[in-house]
Amino acid sequence: MSIGQFLQSGDWKGEKHVPAILAPSSVKAGEEVDIKVVVGEEIKHPNTLEHQIKWIKVLFKPADAKFPVEIADFQFAAHGEFDVFSEPAGTVSVKLPKSGTVYAMSYCNIHGLWENSLDISVE
Amino acid sequence: MSIGQFLQSGDWKGEKHVPAILAPSSVKAGEEVDIKVVVGEEIKHPNTLEHQIKWIKVLFKPADAKFPVEIADFQFAAHGEFDVFSEPAGTVSVKLPKSGTVYAMSYCNIHGLWENSLDISVE
Amino acid sequence: MSIGQFLQSGDWKGEKHVPAILAPSSVKAGEEVDIKVVVGEEIKHPNTLEHQIKWIKVLFKPADAKFPVEIADFQFAAHGEFDVFSEPAGTVSVKLPKSGTVYAMSYCNIHGLWENSLDISVE
Amino acid sequence: MSIGQFLQSGDWKGEKHVPAILAPSSVKAGEEVDIKVVVGEEIKHPNTLEHQIKWIKVLFKPADAKFPVEIADFQFAAHGEFDVFSEPAGTVSVKLPKSGTVYAMSYCNIHGLWENSLDISVE
Ligand SMILES: [Fe+3]
Ligand SMILES: [Fe+3]
Ligand SMILES: [Fe+3]
Ligand SMILES: [Fe+3]
Repeated sequence: MSIGQFLQSGDWKGEKHVPAILAPSSVKAGEEVDIKVVVGEEIKHPNTLEHQIKWIKVLFKPADAKFPVEIADFQFAAHGEFDVFSEPAGTVSVKLPKSGTVYAMSYCNIHGLWENSLDISVE
Repeated sequence: MSIGQFLQSGDWKGEKHVPAILAPSSVKAGEEVDIKVVVGEEIKHPNTLEHQIKWIKVLFKPADAKFPVEIADFQFAAHGEFDVFSEPAGTVSVKLPKSGTVYAMSYCNIHGLWENSLDISVE
Repeated sequence: MSIGQFLQSGDWKGEKHVPAILAPSSVKAGEEVDIKVVVGEEIKHPNTLEHQIKWIKVLFKPADAKFPVEIADFQFAAHGEFDVFSEPAGTVSVKLPKSGTVYAMSYCNIHGLWENSLDISVE
Repeated sequence: MSIGQFLQSGDWKGEKHVPAILAPSSVKAGEEVDIKVVVGEEIKHPNTLEHQIKWIKVLFKPADAKFPVEIADFQFAAHGEFDVFSEPAGTVSVKLPKSGTVYAMSYCNIHGLWENSLDISVE
């Protein structure tokens, strides 16, 4: 029984849980590139104490590597406390050495684990 | 392309990366139970700045639920700074309502993602 | 204006938010020692979606060092989802090189930041 | 002995460890506002396996509240693995109900804890 069986995905424009990965499709090696990950980019996900997106992890697998490397982990902490709401969106800056695939994994406390991927070409 | 393809597993007594899940196989509903997760329980994993276990996540899926619930996330932060070493082992206390499966997912900065699972019967 | 002004403390036997640090007062250099941190060890803290302990961080400052080193970060993630409850208690194993002070910092989503410390003598 | 004594600060334009908080000084209540936190915005901090910024936390204290609320926790995970480098910068979107102060706390594995704050006026 693998956690992989719980990793749900789909088109983020139609399914509000799928993390969108917003980044240029082509970058220069070693340059800082911003990668934005967002849950609910097109269709808002609820953001309440009862139902919320808790975190998004970002990984990168160089095309010629065997394993993915974790880039960042965003924890979204405020969901109504004193009327403060953290929206499930985060941006990280990263230097990539070569072409590969960015993966995002996110977690809804009610609907479990979701994922998405985006290829980035590094010149 | 799913992150699921990167979730490696095996017998933690033979493969040092697989997170061991140490918990009673049978507990009472709503009682606090300790769940210990360990990487390297039988065969030590390196613990250096260059090669280390960074985190272990713990999830639980009740047998009759559709999605897993995250229980805890352990970040192991010290890997030689001032000669302090965090070993990749953590224990969390949890109250479980019914039978299900505990999942552990861990991350080595060189060898990627690993996982394991353990069924717990709740009476 | 420093975050330090928000770090509340006290006797954990009387104030339920203060993280208790349970560890031997004397250990051997380089031996693995278990450090348990708990919020609500004596008086239970609420554990609901509305009011919960979200995390405990553990740091160590060797007596002769200028800065503390982070040992572990425990995130407690389940607070009633599918009737699963993560209790705010975690144990980490650590190798300490010399005498110093363990610090715990914890966060209640309603009552903010709390802290405690414990001296450990390393022989 | 409080962790507060270890919270170092200063002008982020002159001290590379101090987290810069980049956000509008005035926003509308309940509108999404981007808050960017960066270590090394003016003077780069080293980013190696030996010496790195591991995380930045973001909190908000409404002017009339007693306690701060955590907004986000950014973990920067890659520091040279497969030549991937996570830069210590993150952006979170947040809805703020009223005027208050944003706090950032960051951690260098060699030079400890740092902090900064920024007042935001909410209309
Ligand atoms: Fe959901
Ligand atoms: Fe490894
Ligand atoms: Fe509280
Ligand atoms: Fe530094």
